[in-house]
Amino acid sequence: MTKNLTVGLVQHTCCNDPQQNLTTSIHGIEQAAKNGAQLIVLPELHRNHYFCQTEDAGNFDLAEAIPGPTTTTLSVLAKQLKVVIIASLFERRAVGMYHNTAVVIDTDNGIAGIYRKMHIPDDPGYYEKYYFTPGDLGFTPVSTSIGKIGVLVCWDQWFPEAARIMALSGADMLVIPTAIGWDQQDVDAEKQRQYDAWITIQRAHAIANGLPIAVCNRTGHEPDPNGRSDGITFWGSSFVAGPQGELLTQCPSDKTLVQTTIANIERSEQVRRNWPYFRDRRIDAYRDILLRYRD
Amino acid sequence: MTKNLTVGLVQHTCCNDPQQNLTTSIHGIEQAAKNGAQLIVLPELHRNHYFCQTEDAGNFDLAEAIPGPTTTTLSVLAKQLKVVIIASLFERRAVGMYHNTAVVIDTDNGIAGIYRKMHIPDDPGYYEKYYFTPGDLGFTPVSTSIGKIGVLVCWDQWFPEAARIMALSGADMLVIPTAIGWDQQDVDAEKQRQYDAWITIQRAHAIANGLPIAVCNRTGHEPDPNGRSDGITFWGSSFVAGPQGELLTQCPSDKTLVQTTIANIERSEQVRRNWPYFRDRRIDAYRDILLRYRD
Repeated sequence: MTKNLTVGLVQHTCCNDPQQNLTTSIHGIEQAAKNGAQLIVLPELHRNHYFCQTEDAGNFDLAEAIPGPTTTTLSVLAKQLKVVIIASLFERRAVGMYHNTAVVIDTDNGIAGIYRKMHIPDDPGYYEKYYFTPGDLGFTPVSTSIGKIGVLVCWDQWFPEAARIMALSGADMLVIPTAIGWDQQDVDAEKQRQYDAWITIQRAHAIANGLPIAVCNRTGHEPDPNGRSDGITFWGSSFVAGPQGELLTQCPSDKTLVQTTIANIERSEQVRRNWPYFRDRRIDAYRDILLRYRD
Repeated sequence: MTKNLTVGLVQHTCCNDPQQNLTTSIHGIEQAAKNGAQLIVLPELHRNHYFCQTEDAGNFDLAEAIPGPTTTTLSVLAKQLKVVIIASLFERRAVGMYHNTAVVIDTDNGIAGIYRKMHIPDDPGYYEKYYFTPGDLGFTPVSTSIGKIGVLVCWDQWFPEAARIMALSGADMLVIPTAIGWDQQDVDAEKQRQYDAWITIQRAHAIANGLPIAVCNRTGHEPDPNGRSDGITFWGSSFVAGPQGELLTQCPSDKTLVQTTIANIERSEQVRRNWPYFRDRRIDAYRDILLRYRD
C-alpha cells in the first residue's frame, strides 16, 4: 500500500439529470486530482437523484451495465489523472436483475473489481429492497495499484461484520459511498442522534479493525416525488478517519465540495501492535454470529 | 425488563487493601440505592489494586471463590437495598485456575449468573494473560428480576462480536466493568485518541445492536510496582448510553463518585423498528468471521 495516501472526497448534490451529475462528479475528480488525491471517492449512486424515495418501475431504466458507459468514461479519466476512483452505480446485471454496485477503477487498467451492496435497507423513503438484488460477492477487498480497498455501500456501514470481514481479508482501508440524510419531520434532537450514530459506528469500524476509513455522502435536499414527505436532506459530512477512529478531515453537511487529506496507511501496523485485537479474537466462541437470533 | 431503569455507576479508586476497597464499593452501592438505582455497576476487579501491572505469583492469593466472601456480602446488601449489583472479581475456580469474572447479584436470590472474561489482553502494564484463564462460558446474558443483562469485561469492549452475540441472545442492556487508563509517557494527542476510541467503540455497540450500555471504570493513579513505568492513571469517565449510542450520563475522569441515570429500556423496540439491522443481517455471508485471518 502507498504509505501516505492522499484521499479525495467528492461530496456533491445530485439532480434528475444523470449526465449533469456525471459532469459534476468528473469536475470533482479533476479538482481532487489537482489537489494531489490518489484515491477519489464519489457518493453512492452519484449519477442519479436518490430515486429510491418511491417505488417506480420506470426507474430501472436508470440502471446500466458494468462495464458500461460510466465505467468507460471514468477509466479514461483515471488513467489520464493517475488516480483510483470509487464509483457507486446502479447496475443492470441481467434481464430484470439490478444491484447497487461500487466499482473500483484503477489508474491504468480500468475496473480492478466491484462490490455489490450486501445489506439492503427498506424504510419509508428508502425503498431499496424494491430496486436492488442483495449482493452475492461477499466482503472481499479489491486489489489496486495503491493497496487493497475494502468497499462497502451505505447501509452496510451499520454492520460490524462487514467491516470485520473486509479487514480479515486484508483490506488496507475501508471506503464507503453513502446516501443518508435527515427527514425534516424529525425533531432536532433525533436528527442529532442519527447523525452522531452514523459518525460513531463508522469510526468504530476503524477502531475495531485498526485501519483507516473514508466515507463519501451526497448533500442537498431532494423532494419526495410522491409528496408524502418533505423529502430527504442529505447530510453530507463526508469524512476520513485514521486507524484509531480519529477524524482526519470532515466536510460540512450542506456544501458541494472536494476535500483532500493524507492518510498514513503504515500507521495501522503500529496501532495494531499497541492494541492487538486480531491476536485475541475468540474465534472458538463466535459461531452464534451466524444465527438470525439465539432463542 | 423494567421500563425506566435507574442505573448507578460506582466509580472509585482502588488501593492495595481489598477490605478498604470493598468498603468503598459498599458505600457507593448504598449511595446509588439511596439515589434510586436499581442496577448498580462496580469497576473491574473492584476489590483489588490493578495487580496486573506486574507478573507476581503472590497475587494469586488475591483470588477468591465464587460463591465466596464477597458475593455473600454483596448478596445480603442487594437484598437489603433491593438492587441488582454487577461485581467484577478475581475468581479462584480450581487449584491454580483463575478467571476475571463478573457476578450478577439479583435483588433476592443472590448470584443470578456469572460471566468469565473471554478476551484477555496482554501488553506492557496489563499482563492479564498471566493471571486469567480465558472464559469458557461464551457470551450469554444473565436473567434477573429487572431484565437480561449482557455483561462483558474491559478488553471485551473492543470486540463487536461479543456485543453482537449478547444482543442476539436477548440482552436488554450491555454492562461493562472496566479498568483502563493512560500511560503518562504518552503525549496528550495519543491519550486523547485512546480515550475517544474507547468511548466511540462502546457507543457503537449500543448503536449496532439497538440497546443501552453502561460502563464503569476505576479512577485514580496506581504506581508500577516494578518502577519501570509511571504506572497507570485510570481515566474514569464511566458512562451510560442509550440505544442510539446517545450519552445519557458520564462521570469525570478523575473523581470517585456515584452517578445515577435513567435508561428507558423500552426505547430499544422503537429504535430497532426505525433502523432494523437485525432484519437485514447477511448471516449467509458472515462465515469468515470465524477465521483467524482470510489469507
